[in-house]
Amino acid sequence: MAKKLWHEHPSETLRVTEGFRLADVDPDATPGYSHGHSRGEKDLHERRELLGDLQERLYAASRVGDDTDAVLLVLQAMDSAGKGGIVRHVVGGVDPQGVELAAFKAPTDEERTHDFLWRVEKRLPQRGFIGVFDRSHYEDVLIGRVRSLASDEEVERRYGAIREFEQRVAASGIRLVKVMLHISRDEQKSRLMERLERPDKYWKYNPGDVDERMLWDDYMDAYQTVFDRTSTPDAPWYVVPANHKWYARLAVQELLIAALEGIDPQWPGADFDVAAEKKRLAAS
Amino acid sequence: MAKKLWHEHPSETLRVTEGFRLADVDPDATPGYSHGHSRGEKDLHERRELLGDLQERLYAASRVGDDTDAVLLVLQAMDSAGKGGIVRHVVGGVDPQGVELAAFKAPTDEERTHDFLWRVEKRLPQRGFIGVFDRSHYEDVLIGRVRSLASDEEVERRYGAIREFEQRVAASGIRLVKVMLHISRDEQKSRLMERLERPDKYWKYNPGDVDERMLWDDYMDAYQTVFDRTSTPDAPWYVVPANHKWYARLAVQELLIAALEGIDPQWPGADFDVAAEKKRLAAS
Repeated sequence: MAKKLWHEHPSETLRVTEGFRLADVDPDATPGYSHGHSRGEKDLHERRELLGDLQERLYAASRVGDDTDAVLLVLQAMDSAGKGGIVRHVVGGVDPQGVELAAFKAPTDEERTHDFLWRVEKRLPQRGFIGVFDRSHYEDVLIGRVRSLASDEEVERRYGAIREFEQRVAASGIRLVKVMLHISRDEQKSRLMERLERPDKYWKYNPGDVDERMLWDDYMDAYQTVFDRTSTPDAPWYVVPANHKWYARLAVQELLIAALEGIDPQWPGADFDVAAEKKRLAAS
Repeated sequence: MAKKLWHEHPSETLRVTEGFRLADVDPDATPGYSHGHSRGEKDLHERRELLGDLQERLYAASRVGDDTDAVLLVLQAMDSAGKGGIVRHVVGGVDPQGVELAAFKAPTDEERTHDFLWRVEKRLPQRGFIGVFDRSHYEDVLIGRVRSLASDEEVERRYGAIREFEQRVAASGIRLVKVMLHISRDEQKSRLMERLERPDKYWKYNPGDVDERMLWDDYMDAYQTVFDRTSTPDAPWYVVPANHKWYARLAVQELLIAALEGIDPQWPGADFDVAAEKKRLAAS
């Protein structure tokens, strides 16, 4: 089925590999997908069933068997790039009982007294679950670097700490899918402007968003360094062009499907005597 | 809209009030709703938008304003009555970012060293959220009583403790919607049997389910006492006939909608100067 939808699979075309340059990515593009908006929304809707089925198998396998697999989707992006839409329209398509969502805001006073990975470790998904990080430990080398919230040495240390952390996470059975939603500066401007034009969107607007926007180039540099330093075979980054919301959602859905198909979870066998239980139930 | 769907609203017809008798409830009935299965599924689908819109307003109001409102859906039922389906098909229709789901299993060793409400308190929804308890503190007066996991005196104490706890919860701004999904013994048998007949359902079957089933009447007595002792104006119980899954889902969806409409959350105003921000953004 994926073959018909995608002429090149997002897990190949969007993956950050050696020599990747963020500046070369066109946020308007729809790599690997030849159809347009309306077909894209239809495909998104139709592939929910497959994603939901895979998620249920993953969950089932972890409840009965010894499988320790899980998936962790890490979402990073500039403001208004569509993280919320991914959670709502992609993650929202699977059973909430199998999802663990963690939104990382500015760290609390308590969190600040610990290493930057302390609060992240606590929110790793249990086996059988799809975890979603809405922002993550990468903030500590993005805003952390751009705003000099930490010293250069500390930021430098963090890249290595992240690599080791993610290697351990991957070894524990968690498939990491790290996604940066990539919009253009112009697209961000028009999305933020919309929030200022609609009273039902005011609550989504934060004057601080414009402050960060003014540092756009610094953020892009910080992202480039993140990709250079932390895209590894076990914990790859995917840069998803996101000016077209429908494309970004479809692509992230496909990355999740691929991660789950990589696990290939199976319905677990009965750990009880089926015939005996049928008899006992019939008599009850 | 609700008027067309329901000739009597579930928040009235299904509510446990003085003199309620569980034994008088027909699990096959569809009180207040005159249509059948296919129309019921269509209505469920169509009313998702309203529920989703209300949820978003609730969330928005809590982010900017001083609103401390939240909703807590408590789900209790015999095995296979459809709690999971409610989470998947009703709660799954709203943005995962606004939902906090807590599934209460048998208490851990650590939890056992605390009062029975300790673990429950920790999972109360934040303001602006819809919390869902898949099982709850009521297990401590249901299986706790039927299986004599606690002394009679302790169980007796718990009813009062629950009333006081829920009164405080309600006063803090959390609307409680306590739902018992009510299936018949026969319906449970056929649902459990289905799990034994389909290898993709084995993982949902637990031999312990039949053990509990054998104590059906004791459980019904324990539920009756729960209703007698803990259905209060601030924390009412609703008994939802659940032999028809579509009806139970539609009814619970409607109870959530009613709870949110009772709050009537409004889009918060801007806490910044809109004109000034437009100018700043335009220049950026």
